[in-house]
Amino acid sequence: MSEENENIIYVGTKPAIKYAAAVAAEFENGASSVFIKARGRAISRAVDAAEISINRFLEGVEIKEVKISTEEIENRNVSTIQILLSKVE
Amino acid sequence: MSEENENIIYVGTKPAIKYAAAVAAEFENGASSVFIKARGRAISRAVDAAEISINRFLEGVEIKEVKISTEEIENRNVSTIQILLSKVE
Repeated sequence: MSEENENIIYVGTKPAIKYAAAVAAEFENGASSVFIKARGRAISRAVDAAEISINRFLEGVEIKEVKISTEEIENRNVSTIQILLSKVE
Repeated sequence: MSEENENIIYVGTKPAIKYAAAVAAEFENGASSVFIKARGRAISRAVDAAEISINRFLEGVEIKEVKISTEEIENRNVSTIQILLSKVE
């Protein structure tokens, strides 16, 4: 991964629109791609944040890739999501 | 899409393991691919169901594609997820 892919927004318990605004700010500050990451129940909110940022805040940015996986945290398996948004080339 | 892609599990409010078992049953009944679909807060559970089915119930099946989008339902925007699981070729 190149340096331009190091913009990561971690989604937690705030309203999705806060994360969507943070994603938009990254692009406005010159990022060409932003990762949105979340675990467990925050996964739904991460998808909301991605959709809100694409549909309301940004133009010329698309969902490039969505990956799901499992992490072991304190002996429990927790699902994760990683959403890559990128400027349309 | 070919006919083999018409196996769809809709994830709602039951425990994720129920949907994971339903996914596994589809493959055991001969499906070569299964879609898991969910909306709103059930998105996190859909990811859990996919991960549980892959990690606990199935061998030789992989997550082929994950797509997120937005649907308008009763004048509200609702995020959706679609996870495609397929037998490894």
